[in-house]
Amino acid sequence: MPADFDTIVNLAKKRGFVFQSSEIYGGLRSAYDYGPLGAALLRNVKDQWWRSMVQLRDNVVGLDSAILQSPEVWVASGHVASFSDPLVECTNCNTRSRLDKLDDPEQCPSCGMRGKFTDPKLFNLMFRTHMGPVESEENVVYLRPETAQGIFINFENVRRTARLTLPFGIAQIGKSFRNEITPGQFVFRTREFEQMEMEFFCAPDESQQWFEYWLDERRSWYLDLGMTADNLRLRPHGKDELSHYSSGTSDVEYAFPWGWDELEGIANRSDFDLKAHADRSGKDLRYFDQPNNERFYPHVIEPAAGATRTTFAFLIDAYAEEIVNEDTRVVLRLDPRLSPVKAAVLPLSKKPELMEISAPLADRLRHRWEIEHDVTQAIGRRYRRQDEIGTPFCVTVDFDTLEDQAVTVRDRDTMAQDRVSLDKVEEYLAERLPA
Amino acid sequence: MPADFDTIVNLAKKRGFVFQSSEIYGGLRSAYDYGPLGAALLRNVKDQWWRSMVQLRDNVVGLDSAILQSPEVWVASGHVASFSDPLVECTNCNTRSRLDKLDDPEQCPSCGMRGKFTDPKLFNLMFRTHMGPVESEENVVYLRPETAQGIFINFENVRRTARLTLPFGIAQIGKSFRNEITPGQFVFRTREFEQMEMEFFCAPDESQQWFEYWLDERRSWYLDLGMTADNLRLRPHGKDELSHYSSGTSDVEYAFPWGWDELEGIANRSDFDLKAHADRSGKDLRYFDQPNNERFYPHVIEPAAGATRTTFAFLIDAYAEEIVNEDTRVVLRLDPRLSPVKAAVLPLSKKPELMEISAPLADRLRHRWEIEHDVTQAIGRRYRRQDEIGTPFCVTVDFDTLEDQAVTVRDRDTMAQDRVSLDKVEEYLAERLPA
Repeated sequence: MPADFDTIVNLAKKRGFVFQSSEIYGGLRSAYDYGPLGAALLRNVKDQWWRSMVQLRDNVVGLDSAILQSPEVWVASGHVASFSDPLVECTNCNTRSRLDKLDDPEQCPSCGMRGKFTDPKLFNLMFRTHMGPVESEENVVYLRPETAQGIFINFENVRRTARLTLPFGIAQIGKSFRNEITPGQFVFRTREFEQMEMEFFCAPDESQQWFEYWLDERRSWYLDLGMTADNLRLRPHGKDELSHYSSGTSDVEYAFPWGWDELEGIANRSDFDLKAHADRSGKDLRYFDQPNNERFYPHVIEPAAGATRTTFAFLIDAYAEEIVNEDTRVVLRLDPRLSPVKAAVLPLSKKPELMEISAPLADRLRHRWEIEHDVTQAIGRRYRRQDEIGTPFCVTVDFDTLEDQAVTVRDRDTMAQDRVSLDKVEEYLAERLPA
Repeated sequence: MPADFDTIVNLAKKRGFVFQSSEIYGGLRSAYDYGPLGAALLRNVKDQWWRSMVQLRDNVVGLDSAILQSPEVWVASGHVASFSDPLVECTNCNTRSRLDKLDDPEQCPSCGMRGKFTDPKLFNLMFRTHMGPVESEENVVYLRPETAQGIFINFENVRRTARLTLPFGIAQIGKSFRNEITPGQFVFRTREFEQMEMEFFCAPDESQQWFEYWLDERRSWYLDLGMTADNLRLRPHGKDELSHYSSGTSDVEYAFPWGWDELEGIANRSDFDLKAHADRSGKDLRYFDQPNNERFYPHVIEPAAGATRTTFAFLIDAYAEEIVNEDTRVVLRLDPRLSPVKAAVLPLSKKPELMEISAPLADRLRHRWEIEHDVTQAIGRRYRRQDEIGTPFCVTVDFDTLEDQAVTVRDRDTMAQDRVSLDKVEEYLAERLPA
């Protein structure tokens, strides 16, 4: 049972995970800024993806390509011609809607009038801008609508310089932009968003096997990071949903408060992209298979995840309320690898004799982890705050510490407390905080 | 003595640090893609900045604000009115130039004709695009030309939710965009680039002291990461260079092959930005100082570094050629924390009995570090490649390993070799590879 949408949005705002962008100017629709905790959570999600997809693998390398690319890239990929949504406008209230997303294609979802729509127009979702001082058609460039094409156009550069042989992958994390007609659901669908994409190149006759391999790997990634299995599913696309180039696509979906929705698409893209860029650029982008002395276009399996919406899903999934001593305790049961703060160091009071111990302890632990040295408010309120932001451990320096040179370490989930010698705190945490 | 410009650019291309963006389509001027090694180096530079500026500090928090912000932000900041360069066009050859950067303000640097320039026009450097389906003036948004304003507009949100008291800092890393008339010098000046900025808010009467503190801290950061002291300097801006709001600015400069040029600017911005946003938005952005019961605008010290150009400077600074056995050895003496690959595991040959030891060893080490398992070519060539990409350690599995269960670990800088027991390799590297 997923948490209530408004509860999560309110927690995100109250604790500084996510703010409306440009809020002091009334906000910019569908753009969000990640506050200290949100930036840390998003960063941890991306780091875990990178660790799992690049660092731990022998056959996947990273890339960081530009947001501004030659317009030819988007001609070749098909985005200029057909990356568009059908747009209708209600002549009664002037609300614009995406025709293909309406429950009733005649009725305006805003004012409720029927039969008042204009004829649908195709609206290209790429943001256009101009490079250089003159705003002419020949200077048009687009903000990339996906990171994937930056990988395809560098296929040969990367293969050659990293001396890769099939099968291999190229992974990248970065911002993409889509001029959505109807963004919404908080950070789930925004015009500016962050992707984590990997293109895995393989021999054509092995593509089905690798497709299944990546379905399994990607599903496991979410589960390994603590996502509730019942809230996660793989949904194969029906024939009518498949892109023309894809011989198979499955979405990883999460049970969001508004229903099942996509976190990631895993697609068998065949040789569509490399062929399209070879055709358009006139370059030979085939792979030379030395052992068999033959040239061919590799096929591609693409696991493409949304970093921002995945972060949102982890936040929702971690949220729990429980009754403790007749009080409601809110706790974010984030996997410690995702927690923005790994441990909070809390002197019981602001008395100098406690601060003289707690401050250097916090500084020492900071060399390994993100630490908060939180000195204000009653200790109970500080525990509650750390529970709400998902901090796995609270380390309390109290007056007994002056006698026994030990601190109390409280576990977020069990609320059990251990007394740990001051010089063993780092070791204690290291055993419980994996990389 | 800095390395030759072309040598570095060629190494960057040959080894896959940096590629021209959209190269298969003839390239997009002044845009670059970071290949596997360049993406890793850039990532390590950013991670070290974040560790030094956020993780290790008690009074600095992170932020990740949107690239697309309300246009009001850029009106308040002064960018809409005056973030512009004087542009002239040669009527003989149509080359556009920045008037303020010309050695001779009458002579075209392209065709050499004098007195053929048009009257100068002010050209705003912000990229413009439109949000939503209609390209009208009221839908104009800009790509941010700096990350700093995203921090100022969130000052109050961050202060409140993170419960910060002065002095404190808000740090952010991210892409910015400037429509430069004359980009150049490889990745040094590009239209799309990445910044690492921190705004440090303090009491007005403490601003000079904090300005000096940050000058010192920031200079030390480059030196601590191994940059040659003689290639680094702090250059205070002259009175004529100072922005109207700044009471002091110093640049951290590096001795690039073309001369001293900026890596980072450290500015005392006074209360200019918070006041400007308070005036424009009508919000009270003053800080309430509880102990003294007074409200005031904090002053701001801003260390603003370029991530991409800093990465370039580390690459140049690390480059060395030395004569070894009458051969020239090229070696990147990168600080191990910046090295894209921390250790290469090299079986002496592709024989299965060696690969059966080297592959699992590489997989084990990968849990802690970026590892290459490099099995192709003669061992000497593989050493040379690892030297060229700055890998601190090569771990070689040879036929003796089958007997003594030990490997040879070669140090990049000294080329000294240690024989290390297979089960002690991780410990050996951990002692020599700091976080």
